[in-house]
Amino acid sequence: MPQVSNKGKLMPESPIRKLVPYAEIAKKKGHKVYHLNIGQPDIKTPDVALQAIKKADIQVLEYSHSAGFESYRTKLSAYYQTHGLPINTEDIIITTGGSEALLFAMGSTMDVDDEIIIPEPFYANYNGFSTASGVKVVPVISTLEEGFALPPIAAFEKLITPKTKAILICNPGNPTGYLYSKDEILQLAALVKKHDLFLIADEVYREFIYDATEKHHSVMTVEGIEQHAIMIDSVSKRYSMCGARIGCIVSKNKEVMATAMKFAQARLSPPTYEQIASEAALETPQSYFDEVIKEYKERRDTLIAALQNIEGVQVATPKGAFYCIAKLPIDNADTFAQWLLESYDLNGETVMVAPAAGFYSSPNVGQDEVRIAYVLKKDDLIRSVQILDNALKAYNSKK
Amino acid sequence: MPQVSNKGKLMPESPIRKLVPYAEIAKKKGHKVYHLNIGQPDIKTPDVALQAIKKADIQVLEYSHSAGFESYRTKLSAYYQTHGLPINTEDIIITTGGSEALLFAMGSTMDVDDEIIIPEPFYANYNGFSTASGVKVVPVISTLEEGFALPPIAAFEKLITPKTKAILICNPGNPTGYLYSKDEILQLAALVKKHDLFLIADEVYREFIYDATEKHHSVMTVEGIEQHAIMIDSVSKRYSMCGARIGCIVSKNKEVMATAMKFAQARLSPPTYEQIASEAALETPQSYFDEVIKEYKERRDTLIAALQNIEGVQVATPKGAFYCIAKLPIDNADTFAQWLLESYDLNGETVMVAPAAGFYSSPNVGQDEVRIAYVLKKDDLIRSVQILDNALKAYNSKK
Ligand SMILES: Cc1ncc(COP(=O)(O)O)c(C=O)c1O
Ligand SMILES: Cc1ncc(COP(=O)(O)O)c(C=O)c1O
Repeated sequence: MPQVSNKGKLMPESPIRKLVPYAEIAKKKGHKVYHLNIGQPDIKTPDVALQAIKKADIQVLEYSHSAGFESYRTKLSAYYQTHGLPINTEDIIITTGGSEALLFAMGSTMDVDDEIIIPEPFYANYNGFSTASGVKVVPVISTLEEGFALPPIAAFEKLITPKTKAILICNPGNPTGYLYSKDEILQLAALVKKHDLFLIADEVYREFIYDATEKHHSVMTVEGIEQHAIMIDSVSKRYSMCGARIGCIVSKNKEVMATAMKFAQARLSPPTYEQIASEAALETPQSYFDEVIKEYKERRDTLIAALQNIEGVQVATPKGAFYCIAKLPIDNADTFAQWLLESYDLNGETVMVAPAAGFYSSPNVGQDEVRIAYVLKKDDLIRSVQILDNALKAYNSKK
Repeated sequence: MPQVSNKGKLMPESPIRKLVPYAEIAKKKGHKVYHLNIGQPDIKTPDVALQAIKKADIQVLEYSHSAGFESYRTKLSAYYQTHGLPINTEDIIITTGGSEALLFAMGSTMDVDDEIIIPEPFYANYNGFSTASGVKVVPVISTLEEGFALPPIAAFEKLITPKTKAILICNPGNPTGYLYSKDEILQLAALVKKHDLFLIADEVYREFIYDATEKHHSVMTVEGIEQHAIMIDSVSKRYSMCGARIGCIVSKNKEVMATAMKFAQARLSPPTYEQIASEAALETPQSYFDEVIKEYKERRDTLIAALQNIEGVQVATPKGAFYCIAKLPIDNADTFAQWLLESYDLNGETVMVAPAAGFYSSPNVGQDEVRIAYVLKKDDLIRSVQILDNALKAYNSKK
């Protein structure tokens, strides 16, 4: 029997995959499971996007341009410019989700065995895209105690080798909710200039920032790193359009764009209907975002206040995105998360959390941490934290 | 300035990319360009698919399952079974086009520097997916003189090394239109069993077969190679739904499927609306296919008869798909194709062809060949060949 590839063996499983059968068992028992583990928003997709699909008059569903509709790229560049990002039409290639943009960015800038430095904890699928690209992830640890702020530049410099080709940040962060300050972005900019590296910034949560005093600083706004900066973006979260699979890779570096374009041509084009929806979504009224941000802010405040009330739980208040990392008074979050589903319920209800170890690349880090997404309604969040509180007490008293 | 990857530099350009600016020049001059170079059908997408999208009642456009809708996979397996392919729901992962299925197949079965043997000429993007995966393409030549039949098994065996992991065929073939006989498929089956290789079959043109005496033989129907066979499929051509970006990878090999699933999970899900359309497309009435096949058969017959009438042109009658390779009485198809656009017109009209060298991996092969797609209406095909005929005379007399 022919064998699968080593690369395939090394591809990571989703951090919650192991837990799925236990969630199914809980549901079969009739237990209600609150899903704190997923990043799928429950927010309505803007009508203008959904209607555009209904109205589209398509007779032959053709391939689009490999870089995406020109009309969409042009409007998207106008959108960015309105938001202070000096991005032109030709700086954009539309991709099949931010996911594909990440794959193109890695493929265009890194060869097998090259190294990419990523502050951890990070979006778990960075591991998958790196493995698929044959690239080595070199983690630099950020800690809950520091609120997941940028690790000191000296910590990055220690890790830089001749193989290092890029630094990847997620801003604001999944799973940390951390928002990099202007100063941190400028430090990174100086670092990539000094060592001639790419700075890949995953900014898919750019619009999800909850404090009036905070501002997002895109790598695309930093002067002097035009040839270094690559931005990853997506409509998935901005418009609650995860199923659209539309994102983009953005850079002023013409060689990077020409190279990414060859990857784009090989796979022909991004999906047509969802490009229509994404183009139309640009007309979404500001009131939609105001409401969404208000809702998420309330959810965040509700969740964090409730978590901070549980004895032994530590959490850093997220400034953006819709996740937080919580340190729990337990040894092993994998075992605890499984126990929550398999053996626990509070009046027939339980919660599913994502053990945070899957968001770290260093071994044996984050074992007592979980990621909690606040994509549920406030009442459900309150109830979920009640369940978690009771569960922790039960779990720790049974020992 | 940081440099792009070697992999990125090696990524091939689309074989017609160099010609695009010349086509634009021709159009600017007011010349009409008949596009014999593209594989985008002009056939209407089935109504049932387009209507399903209009009717879809989506409020939150969510990620779907990473393997695609279960309902779609189940109906697709029923479709295959009706067509004599013993494929179950769990043997299928829905992908973003056949393109992504090819990428998953390579990633799941091959490591960097592993080798894949492909009869050439082959679909040009196999080069792109191989380069992206770090895999080495080892071509085995099939010739116009032999009608692009399977090269002798001895020719494959000569190329097999310890690094060889798979054989990739396209059946029926783009760009050759060749349809493998049952005997050829069985020979390949014996070969992959003997050498413990995967047999990846790109069957995206399965339904496009034009002679009542000919039958498609899928690798999924061959007993004894269940652990070797991987099928690539797509809705792009079957339903003239290229813009949907929906395809699938199919195998009975559980390890391959579990591995491909990890690649699928990393990129989250295939597009939602287009899955709805693809699921609905399964209800397309047989009459639609009957008409489409009749239309393509007439186009093929028209095109081939006309080409065979040109002095010095050689062509093998395609049995399936909608392309053929034609050998022209010229030295270099690149130069000729450019000249057609840049310097030639017949009463203000010219044609664009795809130089075939881009479909070969061996250097300096197919220099005098072009690929012609018959996705245009009959009258346009007749006119295109007239132009080609006159152009060849003019081209050869100017020397
Ligand atoms: C940080 C981050 N980047 C990228 C993605 C990929 O999103 P998509 O492919 O849907 O655009 C996600 C999805 O959750 C994410 O959280
Ligand atoms: C032989 C072959 N395989 C695969 C594909 C990829 O098609 P898609 O990604 O649209 O399914 C094509 C498209 O032209 C093709 O000709």
